[in-house]
Amino acid sequence: MSSFYAAETPERVKKAQGLHLITSLTPNGRKVHILLEELKDAYGLEWTTSLIDLDKNEQKKDWFLRLNPNGRIPILIDNNTSPPHVVMESSAELFYLVNLADRNNLFWFSDPIEQSEAFQWLIFWHASGQPNQGQYNFFRNNADRNPHVVDRFKREVLRAYDVLEIRLSGRYGGGTRKYLAGKDKGKYSIADVNSWAWIRNIRRIGFSEDELAQLPHLQQWVDRIAVRPAVERGLGEWYDEDVHPEYLLETS
Amino acid sequence: MSSFYAAETPERVKKAQGLHLITSLTPNGRKVHILLEELKDAYGLEWTTSLIDLDKNEQKKDWFLRLNPNGRIPILIDNNTSPPHVVMESSAELFYLVNLADRNNLFWFSDPIEQSEAFQWLIFWHASGQPNQGQYNFFRNNADRNPHVVDRFKREVLRAYDVLEIRLSGRYGGGTRKYLAGKDKGKYSIADVNSWAWIRNIRRIGFSEDELAQLPHLQQWVDRIAVRPAVERGLGEWYDEDVHPEYLLETS
Repeated sequence: MSSFYAAETPERVKKAQGLHLITSLTPNGRKVHILLEELKDAYGLEWTTSLIDLDKNEQKKDWFLRLNPNGRIPILIDNNTSPPHVVMESSAELFYLVNLADRNNLFWFSDPIEQSEAFQWLIFWHASGQPNQGQYNFFRNNADRNPHVVDRFKREVLRAYDVLEIRLSGRYGGGTRKYLAGKDKGKYSIADVNSWAWIRNIRRIGFSEDELAQLPHLQQWVDRIAVRPAVERGLGEWYDEDVHPEYLLETS
Repeated sequence: MSSFYAAETPERVKKAQGLHLITSLTPNGRKVHILLEELKDAYGLEWTTSLIDLDKNEQKKDWFLRLNPNGRIPILIDNNTSPPHVVMESSAELFYLVNLADRNNLFWFSDPIEQSEAFQWLIFWHASGQPNQGQYNFFRNNADRNPHVVDRFKREVLRAYDVLEIRLSGRYGGGTRKYLAGKDKGKYSIADVNSWAWIRNIRRIGFSEDELAQLPHLQQWVDRIAVRPAVERGLGEWYDEDVHPEYLLETS
């Protein structure tokens, strides 16, 4: 497609084949890394990776906006379609990947009711969780931080975490669960991957001991997922520009 | 399911059959009303409605939290499944409804690439658009409004609107579009319904003439969708507790 790549689009992107991920070490990047690593373990899925230096605002340049007008990473390009198909929005990338590659529904569901459940928890986190956690991170690290505003977003993050605690604890019935979606105690799925990448630092984002003590099932869920080999790799050096400078995209 | 309804769950909810919507006149409520009205026009879909008085925080009571631990409207209950299936998160409700009732894909797509596109725009709005517009509404109407914070969220809303303007105008190629997802000029779909319910007031939320002048295609899109009969009905008195007090849920 003539409008797809610009003259200044990096050669590494233009020449990529198969699945190509353009990413960085952020929570949204990490959730997609993790699922790709899971699909590699399960099915031998292959892809290539490029890294963006967010400090240089490479993702706000025209060549990137052609691929994602929202100017955000991660994006996933599927070069197996013609023209190549670009997917923006990390939740949509997870959903695209399970549809494409998870033929045994290891990380998704075949039952329509379970699909609906997983979809709801995917959207819940993307819409009610991560925007508030993003604002909380911004305002608490901002030089002229306003205590009322920091507090508003901290409360919103705690509220979202409590919604997940309700779900996992069975506070209103249904029994305790291991994972967010699926029958009985649930099954590890992209609903978990999507939110875990943000919540994994639950003990390091300014909550008090008392506040954490209200979230025991959520903390157990964080620890349960952290030990998966694909999760450990998804957080790791493969996606670090210092370790893999050859993956870094830079334009003049 | 024994945990599904509590003693204090209103009889109107317990006795509902088929599809039952619990809602209020908010942008998220309206998007679901609109799609239900579209599905009524297209297929004769039927449902019943209950209204929540948000000022009384009925949606934060235990009986409601059993149905949606996030304590937010709208929720959709499908009593045709056993046990009844509750759907929270307005985008997930739109997706559930097209899967359930839109057998000719009038408001969705059969092609996987078009499905992926529609899904991306659905998520984009739910995650990057409406949380910022919600915060903007909150802070600009807040008694001790902080100009820096109001301005931050106004800029975020304008940025999200500009992403949609890029898409509709074809600024980076692909030509102008009538709707957000679908081949060529696109097809009206739940990706549009989802964001339109928030953007319809584009000329009344504090943007200057100069700011609006940067969004011509988005304004045309707002007007294009506004004239659909189902959209007009979805905004209307059917969902107003003053007109239909018998739909209002109240517990002691």
